[in-house]
Amino acid sequence: MCCSFSISMWSTRIVIVLFVFVVSSNFCNGGYTGVYVRNPLPSMDMPLETLPPPSGFNAPEQVHITQGDQQGRSVIISWVTPLRGYPYVKYWEQGHHHNDHNHNHKHMARAITTSYTYYNYTSGFIHHATIKRLKYDTLYSYELGYGSVTRRFSFKTPPPLGPDVPYTFGVIGDLGQTYDSNQTLEHYVSNPKGQTMLFVGDLSYADHYEFHDNRRWDTWARFVEKSTAYQPWIWTAGNHELDLASEIGENVPFKPYMHRYHVPHKAAESTSPLWYSIKRASAHIIVLSSYSAYGKYTLQYNWLEKEFQKVDRSVTPWLIVLVHSPWYNSNTYHYMEGESMRVMFEPWFVQNKVDIVFAGHVHSYERSERISNIQYNIVNGLSTPVKDPSAPIYITIGDAYREASFGHAILDIKNRTHAYYTWHRNQDSEAVAADSLWIYNRHYFPVEENTTSTMIILDGHIK
Amino acid sequence: MCCSFSISMWSTRIVIVLFVFVVSSNFCNGGYTGVYVRNPLPSMDMPLETLPPPSGFNAPEQVHITQGDQQGRSVIISWVTPLRGYPYVKYWEQGHHHNDHNHNHKHMARAITTSYTYYNYTSGFIHHATIKRLKYDTLYSYELGYGSVTRRFSFKTPPPLGPDVPYTFGVIGDLGQTYDSNQTLEHYVSNPKGQTMLFVGDLSYADHYEFHDNRRWDTWARFVEKSTAYQPWIWTAGNHELDLASEIGENVPFKPYMHRYHVPHKAAESTSPLWYSIKRASAHIIVLSSYSAYGKYTLQYNWLEKEFQKVDRSVTPWLIVLVHSPWYNSNTYHYMEGESMRVMFEPWFVQNKVDIVFAGHVHSYERSERISNIQYNIVNGLSTPVKDPSAPIYITIGDAYREASFGHAILDIKNRTHAYYTWHRNQDSEAVAADSLWIYNRHYFPVEENTTSTMIILDGHIK
Repeated sequence: MCCSFSISMWSTRIVIVLFVFVVSSNFCNGGYTGVYVRNPLPSMDMPLETLPPPSGFNAPEQVHITQGDQQGRSVIISWVTPLRGYPYVKYWEQGHHHNDHNHNHKHMARAITTSYTYYNYTSGFIHHATIKRLKYDTLYSYELGYGSVTRRFSFKTPPPLGPDVPYTFGVIGDLGQTYDSNQTLEHYVSNPKGQTMLFVGDLSYADHYEFHDNRRWDTWARFVEKSTAYQPWIWTAGNHELDLASEIGENVPFKPYMHRYHVPHKAAESTSPLWYSIKRASAHIIVLSSYSAYGKYTLQYNWLEKEFQKVDRSVTPWLIVLVHSPWYNSNTYHYMEGESMRVMFEPWFVQNKVDIVFAGHVHSYERSERISNIQYNIVNGLSTPVKDPSAPIYITIGDAYREASFGHAILDIKNRTHAYYTWHRNQDSEAVAADSLWIYNRHYFPVEENTTSTMIILDGHIK
Repeated sequence: MCCSFSISMWSTRIVIVLFVFVVSSNFCNGGYTGVYVRNPLPSMDMPLETLPPPSGFNAPEQVHITQGDQQGRSVIISWVTPLRGYPYVKYWEQGHHHNDHNHNHKHMARAITTSYTYYNYTSGFIHHATIKRLKYDTLYSYELGYGSVTRRFSFKTPPPLGPDVPYTFGVIGDLGQTYDSNQTLEHYVSNPKGQTMLFVGDLSYADHYEFHDNRRWDTWARFVEKSTAYQPWIWTAGNHELDLASEIGENVPFKPYMHRYHVPHKAAESTSPLWYSIKRASAHIIVLSSYSAYGKYTLQYNWLEKEFQKVDRSVTPWLIVLVHSPWYNSNTYHYMEGESMRVMFEPWFVQNKVDIVFAGHVHSYERSERISNIQYNIVNGLSTPVKDPSAPIYITIGDAYREASFGHAILDIKNRTHAYYTWHRNQDSEAVAADSLWIYNRHYFPVEENTTSTMIILDGHIK
């Protein structure tokens, strides 16, 4: 429970040691070792009162934005009003020569508005406005609300798609709303690099409360607004988004999540917001659902099969997948929960040379070598992960919730061949990277990474 | 492509040979051998005109019944009328001393009525009436229709649940509506033994037609009425029930199937008709969905975890699972499609000592030894099926559609310890069993079966 270790080289042997660890959880491997020992106690949720709505009658709150199309010229702006409210967003291009208050340059977009009930909770009015045909690489301001109660935010659109367009993504999973979550988010916000967040699922953890107290969905959205209102968060559904509670008659999977977080799945020719894709700068990002059907012939399977055919590395060299439940996980906690999806999809990932798979779910940081396990045919015994230069790196970043050792990651894409990846622990200052790696693109530069700096911090959730 | 072989004994070696066959499809194993070589050409669907509606204005058609509760005292009666029609069923107990026409003993039940559109097709009015509190082990007559256009059918309720109650199930999968399907069904109907049908999915194959011509759902229901109106068919959803066709905007999985075939999932505390259970005589039957989510935390996973806890072998010693996609399949066709669900659920099957798993999907008959493959932990290499006396026998009976060698199976439960299982090929007379086996109950008599008569017929679908 107290040991942590690293994988230092491309080594099948060491990969095996990694997984043997699961079976013998007291086994301590030598080698490069992360020295941090986490607080074994879970941290506390911030009280409801610390996350109040903004002041003003029917003020727009819980503002968050995400990409609204395939290419990055569109943004979905979402917010909540306690009463029916004013379903419009005003937006305009910021510029040196334009006064922000010059209404000639302002545009309006109307939201669609939804709401839902969950047992004894009724949501506010949830607005989703898609603003389209934005200029690339441009700062926009937007304003929500009406009369004297307005709130103003801003975002920057990405550059046009292109193989060498640099772009920097943040990565967080399992955020929750504890004091540690707050530390994680503050660290991320204080880092000026992150332009778009890849969020790998498990948002509010409202389901930890009796009747899944959906007020915790409201407080969470208020908590993260300082980032989500200003840069797109690319959403992935986790198990804490399922909100299934048959004892109170709540059997519609993802009900609060799907009402609150809209994604551009239709632009990705997906029939469900739970799996979709976006392209941004030099990256093609595929989002999958661990908790939907993925068997052959199913909607998600059919979609993913076609989606891989659409990937054009000459435009978006970086192929990144987000999925909540990790396929490779050396922790006993949630051990092998991702195995069933791995069995279905891993051959496609290797065949299509996915660069990186980000997952969450396990509240521990972990980064794999490039490994695959796709030779198995039930009887040949070829069921052990092996080094594979066509395989993704698997990074489990479900590390924000509960434990003070957690943090966020930054993926800094430089060009078609190189990206610099860093992991930032909360207990360090932002400038320190506890794990860092130059990642080489599988299409344009499929050589072996130098992984000597890799480390793995084990969490406290050993069975 | 033309060889067939058998497994003759409890032998890990031979089990391995079985699966090695998949890899090397020209490998012919010695031993007991089925000699039948199938017609390599697919057989033809019966023309629409051979399956007309019954005569009479708005006559009730496509009559089918299934169990309507957990214990077998209730029946769901379903039928279709072209126009809105008369949504009532009249039913009465048959008896030596009662005149069938004595209205004093007649009951009425009202159906719920539904309909659906599928691209350019609009269904008739589909009626589902649940009749309740029936007497056990009793012949009932029922009548549908109104005025001069009525149609009369009958069924027999099962005996009360009990550990030694003998009962005989038929098993068919992948039926379709070819001339061979007709032969399969005629063979089954001519066999007086089968009291209830366990149908392992793939009903009409309407999706083989342009726009999934849903008239084929109508003709299929007419085709099988000679059995489905007289004994319960326990339905399992197969891939041909998905009816997904994004090119014509049809993206709701199982739309025609779920409108047409109702099952007692609510009585089984399931939130979906795609997975549920019934108890009948001495059997507890669990139906699973290969094409829905089954990952941890999902509805089907949560339900199955609880369902196994409800199994009471002292009341229903026989624990039988129906699932469309087989977990063990030595054919290259559909090879390993069931692997992902196996990874999730197989440990539960062994732990709960499931007696038999019936699957379809692969259009070939196959029966496994009692094998399991649940020791794998990603790195230990323990990924080969091994003999396991707590494991189910896996029977793939997806054998009605397309090929003349196919047939049906009969599971004749004798008491809490013994069941006699036979497989009847269409090309033989009904009295001949091409495969037969005394199956021993895993709870009350978990000894090794004598499998010398086992055989496997390979299909023509080698890749």
